Amino acid sequence: MLLYDSAVSGNCYKVRLLLAHLAIPYERRELSVTDRSNRPEVLGGLNPALRVPTLVLDDGRPLGESNAILWYFGEGTRYVPENRYERAQVLQWQFFEQYDHEPHIAVARFWLHYSGGKADPAALERRQASGYRALDAMEKHLDRRAFFVGERYSLADISLYAYTHVAGEGGFDLLRYPAIRAWLERVAAQPGHIAIDA
Amino acid sequence: MLLYDSAVSGNCYKVRLLLAHLAIPYERRELSVTDRSNRPEVLGGLNPALRVPTLVLDDGRPLGESNAILWYFGEGTRYVPENRYERAQVLQWQFFEQYDHEPHIAVARFWLHYSGGKADPAALERRQASGYRALDAMEKHLDRRAFFVGERYSLADISLYAYTHVAGEGGFDLLRYPAIRAWLERVAAQPGHIAIDA
Repeated sequence: MLLYDSAVSGNCYKVRLLLAHLAIPYERRELSVTDRSNRPEVLGGLNPALRVPTLVLDDGRPLGESNAILWYFGEGTRYVPENRYERAQVLQWQFFEQYDHEPHIAVARFWLHYSGGKADPAALERRQASGYRALDAMEKHLDRRAFFVGERYSLADISLYAYTHVAGEGGFDLLRYPAIRAWLERVAAQPGHIAIDA
Repeated sequence: MLLYDSAVSGNCYKVRLLLAHLAIPYERRELSVTDRSNRPEVLGGLNPALRVPTLVLDDGRPLGESNAILWYFGEGTRYVPENRYERAQVLQWQFFEQYDHEPHIAVARFWLHYSGGKADPAALERRQASGYRALDAMEKHLDRRAFFVGERYSLADISLYAYTHVAGEGGFDLLRYPAIRAWLERVAAQPGHIAIDA
């Protein structure tokens, strides 16, 4: 099984983290997140979005989108609830992550940390304001909860952990968020946890 | 069951379309998509993203995110495949829709059609360029396929139909896309189909 990967991408880290929990072996092939000129050639037939992570199963069938890959491997394991409402809640938080969290927090982090600091100040400020709104919503939800759904560690936590735990690299101050910080520690204490740079 | 709704929102239309296919009754409560000042008050305890659609089940439990709501009702019906790989492919296209399609096509449509035409020309041009990339990817995929996943109508088609069939309102020229136009007709011919303004 082959994962088209980026060592610094939180989206790729989600997949690596779940595969580590599940002890599933795979091969990594690193693609650049700054020079994307080879993406059509490499990923053209595999992923309509031309992005990493893209997974190629042993039989050659491809799969894109970090959260879809998580469901492919997570179904039937402890990381996906069986209850219909809780399953929909996991998806709710994963779609929240891709719409309200990643486009702001991951992009601010990329601009500040991985693109040589070439951020337009006004654009960065907008992304950070939106990113803080996502963090505010997470803090409120975690205020009296241990995990995002059903009080158990699930794919929802994996998806939101990926870019939240490195939000500081995007200029976000997590000291404002005690519930998020306690949750980050609970996630990092899960059996089989690996770091983003593992 | 109560759906916080917007008559013009494609995201809300996804939910209304699936509930029509399944003949599930519900109540609609319209929220404005231009004046969002009452969102914290109305949706504050229900949806972390403060957006429509937000569904409140008969027992009071809330659910947000259009595609998560689709899965809540779609599981176990003809609109969700049973095969593990196909299920992940449905999710892949739904995450593609929320990341690569909706933020460009729906936003361009909103700016041109529902906000009094107050679009910044350079920002509109960027959204349209990105939206055309999403349409290009869809056209390529549909070139020799009837539907997005497994050659059967599924949640993936519902999700992508919602804003694609009104992309013209965002300034997109669908005449360039014969495979998409044929697919739009196949979707509209499904039993129980309703229009966005039904």
